[in-house]
Amino acid sequence: MKKLINDPQNVVIESVRGFGLAHPDLVRVNEDPLYVSRAGGAVQGKVGLVSGGGSGHEPLHAGYVGMGMLDAAVPGAVFTSPTPDPIFEATKAADGGAGVLHIVKNYTGDVLNFETAAELAEAEDIQVRSVVVNDDVAVEDSLYTAGRRGVAGTVLVEKIAGAAAERGDDLDAVVAVAQQVIDNVRSMGVALTACTVPHAGRPSFDLEENEIEIGIGIHGEPGRHKIPMAGANEITERLLDPVLDDLKIGSGEKVLLFVNGMGGTPLSELYLVYNHAREVLDGKGVEVTRSLVGNYITSLEMQGASITVLRLDDALTELWDAPVNTPALRRGV
Amino acid sequence: MKKLINDPQNVVIESVRGFGLAHPDLVRVNEDPLYVSRAGGAVQGKVGLVSGGGSGHEPLHAGYVGMGMLDAAVPGAVFTSPTPDPIFEATKAADGGAGVLHIVKNYTGDVLNFETAAELAEAEDIQVRSVVVNDDVAVEDSLYTAGRRGVAGTVLVEKIAGAAAERGDDLDAVVAVAQQVIDNVRSMGVALTACTVPHAGRPSFDLEENEIEIGIGIHGEPGRHKIPMAGANEITERLLDPVLDDLKIGSGEKVLLFVNGMGGTPLSELYLVYNHAREVLDGKGVEVTRSLVGNYITSLEMQGASITVLRLDDALTELWDAPVNTPALRRGV
Repeated sequence: MKKLINDPQNVVIESVRGFGLAHPDLVRVNEDPLYVSRAGGAVQGKVGLVSGGGSGHEPLHAGYVGMGMLDAAVPGAVFTSPTPDPIFEATKAADGGAGVLHIVKNYTGDVLNFETAAELAEAEDIQVRSVVVNDDVAVEDSLYTAGRRGVAGTVLVEKIAGAAAERGDDLDAVVAVAQQVIDNVRSMGVALTACTVPHAGRPSFDLEENEIEIGIGIHGEPGRHKIPMAGANEITERLLDPVLDDLKIGSGEKVLLFVNGMGGTPLSELYLVYNHAREVLDGKGVEVTRSLVGNYITSLEMQGASITVLRLDDALTELWDAPVNTPALRRGV
Repeated sequence: MKKLINDPQNVVIESVRGFGLAHPDLVRVNEDPLYVSRAGGAVQGKVGLVSGGGSGHEPLHAGYVGMGMLDAAVPGAVFTSPTPDPIFEATKAADGGAGVLHIVKNYTGDVLNFETAAELAEAEDIQVRSVVVNDDVAVEDSLYTAGRRGVAGTVLVEKIAGAAAERGDDLDAVVAVAQQVIDNVRSMGVALTACTVPHAGRPSFDLEENEIEIGIGIHGEPGRHKIPMAGANEITERLLDPVLDDLKIGSGEKVLLFVNGMGGTPLSELYLVYNHAREVLDGKGVEVTRSLVGNYITSLEMQGASITVLRLDDALTELWDAPVNTPALRRGV
């Protein structure tokens, strides 16, 4: 295991500390309990947005704290759900008096701990609502999950719900927008190599030299099947086709196409995958009106990628285009 | 070799085509000869900025085409200098009548081919000036290079000179700003793993399971020495100390600190390195007033990082803070 780390027990705190030092204009790090909130604090009268989960998926979630996205993010240990206490404290830090939305990826630990934190917050008269992101079409039920896993679609939920909150939508309206994104976004990923959790010290799963895993989860959970290494076009189709089938996207519809890197794959390869995904979508008469390509939700140093498609309407497009000012996504400000 | 590619001969064109499709609001791709220019074309009356070099370092350079940085970028084959013809055509596309600056990384092929392209452009009455970036303190002379190599400092030259051109500085002034950055920026990198050029099909160099290379070049050129795998703090100091020594940075000075990923290293590890670099700089009384952390100039899927320090004054800081709107760096717009 070769990693730029010191003691495996301290990777999260040392990294988040560096993150806070690098972005003092945007975020503030609270070390005990550990959460990241906006540098300027909660925005009074605005719905607060909180997300979180195991570390190892950076820039998700702390990279999306800032104007137009999250108010606070809670990093757990690597690939381990944060406990209720830091989620509760982050919820308080995000509360501007208009209620707080928890954006939760569908993993059993995350769902339980966010629920407990919500109960703690409600006991202090903070109104909390939750949405659960479950965009991964690869498998129903999985290691750590009942139902579908939450993966790259989470980034789009955070951006679009964040924009709705920022323009002043009330809690019900922000929940509705977040749920609309969840209902219309699907993803699937591939792993070319495994990743290694620092305190484990060995790869999370095994892949042969000439083998890849289609439908991989962001923690290396089993996907649909292992297949021999194939060309990028074939791999792209094996990810994109199930996504489109599940979404029932038809000719003439508008979509956002998001090609995400798992952490260890070069940007050039992501654009190459994007290129063929466009060819496929063009062939089906699906109009790609918005795009995102890069490492936005990762699995440590895993090589691989995921493809996400979001069905757009004018309202979602306007929220996608709204200004955002976070360490990992910045536009219009 | 596991890569998300099809035919190794087509990786650059398929990737750049996807890049163009993903960013139609910002860039335009010319396929024959291959270069990337601003979607809106040359800006009349503005000094044009052109850079380029071998592919495999994405987002450099095409990712920096747009308002506030480059007017055009020329991607060569992977780790191979582009020929004079596309550089010449890109220079014409970038020419707004106020002259063109070539920003060249110090590799023999790049320097020669940009010179030839400049002569071709001068023959068509386009005034061309060049700066050569040579920020890598690891080695004097190297594979492909006479003198020091140009590495991550190039990103800072492109951003700051781009801002000077955008505000209307004339060619002499833009050259002077670019040269000021070059004179005040130093870098050094480390490889944890090698990278594989697609058409070569095998790693560019060898590293043992428990070995890393200090002072690596961005094409895997030899560095200063191979050492056993060490902790991130020790590695950080082995990169940062020579950079600071060479720059002769002293207590009370202000700097931009840039921790760059080589492509295969997780963002969390870059922030962890940044964290310790800040501890070292704080200890020396050097004030970090601006920061950049992420994968900005890469070496395919290489695991590793580089540390860059730029001495700042108020003028450079203002240019660094100026709005920029490119696929890979966006702020203030």
